[in-house]
Amino acid sequence: MEAPYIVIIATGSEITAGRSLDTNSGWMANQLFELGWKVKKFIALPDDPDLILSELQMLQKLSETRPVLAIMTGGLGPTEDDYTLETVLKLTGKKSYSVEKAKIRLTRVYESRGKQYSDILPTVLRQTFVPEDCKILDNNVGIAVGFVELIGVDSYLVCMPGVPSEMKEMFTRRLTPELKRLYPRENLVQKTKWLWNIGESLYQKDFVEKFREDLFSEVDWGVTANRGYIKCIFQSNNVSKLEKIIERLEEQYPKIISDDVFSYVHEELMSRNYSIAVGESCTGGLLGKKLSDSPGSSSYFLGGFLTYSNVLKESLLGVPANVLSEFGAVSEEAAKAMAKGIFEKTKADYCISITGIAGPDGGTDIKPVGTVWIGLKTPDGTIQTHLYLFPGNREGIRENASNTALFLLYQSLKQRNV
Amino acid sequence: MEAPYIVIIATGSEITAGRSLDTNSGWMANQLFELGWKVKKFIALPDDPDLILSELQMLQKLSETRPVLAIMTGGLGPTEDDYTLETVLKLTGKKSYSVEKAKIRLTRVYESRGKQYSDILPTVLRQTFVPEDCKILDNNVGIAVGFVELIGVDSYLVCMPGVPSEMKEMFTRRLTPELKRLYPRENLVQKTKWLWNIGESLYQKDFVEKFREDLFSEVDWGVTANRGYIKCIFQSNNVSKLEKIIERLEEQYPKIISDDVFSYVHEELMSRNYSIAVGESCTGGLLGKKLSDSPGSSSYFLGGFLTYSNVLKESLLGVPANVLSEFGAVSEEAAKAMAKGIFEKTKADYCISITGIAGPDGGTDIKPVGTVWIGLKTPDGTIQTHLYLFPGNREGIRENASNTALFLLYQSLKQRNV
Repeated sequence: MEAPYIVIIATGSEITAGRSLDTNSGWMANQLFELGWKVKKFIALPDDPDLILSELQMLQKLSETRPVLAIMTGGLGPTEDDYTLETVLKLTGKKSYSVEKAKIRLTRVYESRGKQYSDILPTVLRQTFVPEDCKILDNNVGIAVGFVELIGVDSYLVCMPGVPSEMKEMFTRRLTPELKRLYPRENLVQKTKWLWNIGESLYQKDFVEKFREDLFSEVDWGVTANRGYIKCIFQSNNVSKLEKIIERLEEQYPKIISDDVFSYVHEELMSRNYSIAVGESCTGGLLGKKLSDSPGSSSYFLGGFLTYSNVLKESLLGVPANVLSEFGAVSEEAAKAMAKGIFEKTKADYCISITGIAGPDGGTDIKPVGTVWIGLKTPDGTIQTHLYLFPGNREGIRENASNTALFLLYQSLKQRNV
Repeated sequence: MEAPYIVIIATGSEITAGRSLDTNSGWMANQLFELGWKVKKFIALPDDPDLILSELQMLQKLSETRPVLAIMTGGLGPTEDDYTLETVLKLTGKKSYSVEKAKIRLTRVYESRGKQYSDILPTVLRQTFVPEDCKILDNNVGIAVGFVELIGVDSYLVCMPGVPSEMKEMFTRRLTPELKRLYPRENLVQKTKWLWNIGESLYQKDFVEKFREDLFSEVDWGVTANRGYIKCIFQSNNVSKLEKIIERLEEQYPKIISDDVFSYVHEELMSRNYSIAVGESCTGGLLGKKLSDSPGSSSYFLGGFLTYSNVLKESLLGVPANVLSEFGAVSEEAAKAMAKGIFEKTKADYCISITGIAGPDGGTDIKPVGTVWIGLKTPDGTIQTHLYLFPGNREGIRENASNTALFLLYQSLKQRNV
């Protein structure tokens, strides 16, 4: 069977008004990708039955020429702006009925709150309704029932609740087996590596173009640009080809390659009982924020110093006044003295200092905006220093600097792990 | 002129593959709402020129029946999967040319890295190309030039880079004035107020519903939910009606209402020569990061302490051991001692301490996840303490806490300004 043309539709005026971010569609695309399918289109629509109906009619029309799989979330709730069922009934000309199992579930929920079946508002009860002769998708988390509706030859419309926890459970446990049955496929494998402080275009020229003929047959590739790093993604049914690419990539970029730095750093610091403290100037707290993003980070992140002003660099971290006057706050000497000061005050195994010029003002010919020194005191007591010239605006430079600091930490942890 | 049918298109296989979340579309919808427009549809497409072209052709066709405004992001970069320009040229049958100003900018970037014009790869240079006879949107953050292309009667296709920092700057500084020129709205005035730690639905019930008949004729309203606050937006041609609403809102919510806290705090601290320092526990640096987001913040933000661990609360801020053992790190006493310690070490006019439970673990019956104490030492030497129970997940609680700390600072600055 031809692979279906897959469209994911999120309904909700809160999304198209920018009040709420649609995270469902991306999550589903990821799941579908792992099942071996690529999504052709995301659509988000306001809670407007006419707009929703006309979109579904277009998809129904498209299904005359090829298999279409439309997966829609939202609009199955109890409020007056929930139009999904009504719209699907208009599309198909069918009637609806209340699913017995869901009605029982709803009654139990009411009873657990000391209420009765007769207390259930009709708008709430509506969530148990689905079109006749559809495939029902049970909801084990909430009330609203999902369903799969045939809309053409090998073409289906899937409707699921928009609440992420309900959708995810329904997708994984109910919809995935159904999709595998409707559209049998081989599974794809995906590998991802990060490369630091290199541009997308240089990577493409020096790696993808260079090895295109040798390595990239049967392999899909992609790249995403982030602050400080690019993510290189490869997909194929052929695992050994993927492994060959990763090997080649590691050979070519031994010094700037990594796995997911954020999760690696978190897991290693947790499991190896290292402590860490920071001293931040231009990043103003962003590195500390990143280090404490993950639950459980209190087991390794002690804290540190925001020495945004020179006064505090001296008084809190003991950076000598003559270092500041002679070399400046943005200098190798200052980064080193800061790292030393952090260690003296906290005794942390790892101490990271960042000092730089985030701009837009403050740059000079010798130290342009983007100049950043990072100091790293490692458990053996040595202090490394690293100089960078980061591109981008103020926000970009600060993101770059704190991400790169975590990459340096990654490298040190990796080395000590060998 | 009829209001345009607005569609926002995000291109990028990383989006439709679920590897990257499209935050641009929501951000733009928000901005458009502030200009007085509602978006009819979001679309996200992979980097596939055929799919993009067919979508644009459909919009061009739609523009025969009504004004259409399509705003597309992505696909203007230097890699081979960037198809936007090529696709627009196919759509319009036009040729392209390289924008001189952008070429000069690009050359300067290369020169600053010790390279020459001749080193610029053709794929990189392609980012300076736009269709003939279009309206150019300068890029002050990155390289790729944006543009506005006529696609029908009163109908336009806007193409901008997908990198959020570039898109946002371009949207605000270049596109917004252009949109106001292309679709003039009569004297539409907008007023915005922020309300702190109140839900959208409660506000809607207690204010909008209550005064709908009295106050809301001729007035459009909207609300956006943010971390710690909701933005209440009102739009009308009738200024006196708007003023009446704001007056009523201030009467009803005197203690939780504010203007834009971030810009007010920045401007007041700058102009009034107050210094500020922080001591953060659960926010781990987020407050410092926010205080140093704006260029020029070094004139007031001294820095501070990340006392994520209790050890550092004691050793850096002198929080007495018996306060921690008797009342706990998340207590009024600890917040007060932290604020006192910050002042002793920095002598800052304003000192803010935050200590709380961001979760997901660590909550108890008495101090559930979301419990946060904020201490604020003001220029007169007094220390206020405030207790909150913030909703949301770890990230939400941390955002809530640091935003609310800035709101407390706002209130104090406002009071001292009276």
